[in-house]
Amino acid sequence: MPRVPAAHLAARRRQILAGARRAFLRDGFQAASMQDVLRESGLSAGAVYRYFTGKEEIVVAVAREALAVVRASFDQLGADRIPPTPDDLFVEVFGRLKEAMGAGEDARELPRLLVQIWSEALRNAELAEAVNEAYAQLTVEWARLVEEYQARGWVDRQANTVHVARTLIGAVQGYLVQQALWGGIAPEEFARGLRALVSMTVPPGEGPGAAG
Amino acid sequence: MPRVPAAHLAARRRQILAGARRAFLRDGFQAASMQDVLRESGLSAGAVYRYFTGKEEIVVAVAREALAVVRASFDQLGADRIPPTPDDLFVEVFGRLKEAMGAGEDARELPRLLVQIWSEALRNAELAEAVNEAYAQLTVEWARLVEEYQARGWVDRQANTVHVARTLIGAVQGYLVQQALWGGIAPEEFARGLRALVSMTVPPGEGPGAAG
Repeated sequence: MPRVPAAHLAARRRQILAGARRAFLRDGFQAASMQDVLRESGLSAGAVYRYFTGKEEIVVAVAREALAVVRASFDQLGADRIPPTPDDLFVEVFGRLKEAMGAGEDARELPRLLVQIWSEALRNAELAEAVNEAYAQLTVEWARLVEEYQARGWVDRQANTVHVARTLIGAVQGYLVQQALWGGIAPEEFARGLRALVSMTVPPGEGPGAAG
Repeated sequence: MPRVPAAHLAARRRQILAGARRAFLRDGFQAASMQDVLRESGLSAGAVYRYFTGKEEIVVAVAREALAVVRASFDQLGADRIPPTPDDLFVEVFGRLKEAMGAGEDARELPRLLVQIWSEALRNAELAEAVNEAYAQLTVEWARLVEEYQARGWVDRQANTVHVARTLIGAVQGYLVQQALWGGIAPEEFARGLRALVSMTVPPGEGPGAAG
């Protein structure tokens, strides 16, 4: 058998995953068959089985790729000496997500894939592991960022850093749910909404607890 | 045919939906068959088809019920003369969600069902309609609450009320994703995380934009 260059192998793998992604987006992980994956990737069964043992392995590979894109949107944000303010943080994270999602109707694909991945992970142990890994790492990094905020007195020092980190991540997941379901939700609008919330101030003595 | 009392009809309907919910939670909307629904509800096909034309109608009914529970968690929060502070708002919403979810392993059921509903709604137009209705109503109500906040000067008057409302709803959706995937995430911890975020203060002149 002739030796195949590594670049060619990588390109083939990408071709399979791109086709699989289209098939899964259209029909769902369960309903899309290996035949659908082959048709969408334009490759023969022989070619595809050189890279993957079957549909289950392709499902996990497509999921890992999508999760890596989300991870990359958050990456390195806590690596600077001076932490980004939440303003900058949201603008940066949602800006990167926007870039990763693309424009127009395409911009719903990554969110739709992620909602499907979460749902499938409830029943698929391998997928659950891939999801857990991605978010566990993210939580540790963001908790570190919240510690930085606390050290500067920006966030209440009594607050549990992991809980605050989870809430930050939850806001991004909430965005993904809405963009998957409805589309047309500009990341910068969501970031502005978050910003308005974070900068909210209730003067002491006001609110329902106050006398009068 | 003898007349059947309304209370009996309602109880039967509840029995079918409870069985269907168990079947869908275990196997997913697509993989669970009408046979699984019958087995779980302990009723005959004849009995079930008196209430529903088939699995598709049961899927939508189960989804509407789950969405109504979430809606109820948010309900009436904006109805008071004095709006709840975000603190009280989060504690109240997540407290109601907690009550609706129950305890222990049960507490993942509603979140898991909702993640499955979102995913299925990407491909099922009737389900998408049920989801859209629920969230459209919620968005209007929460936007009204944000207007109240603005009138009191708590939230920046320039902020788009719908964007802020969506972000608030997104935080709850993010909580649901995490509780579905991992469980054991106490609603009050998430509420505290949100609170810490909302009460965050970056002094002017600090942050990466500042000189030095």
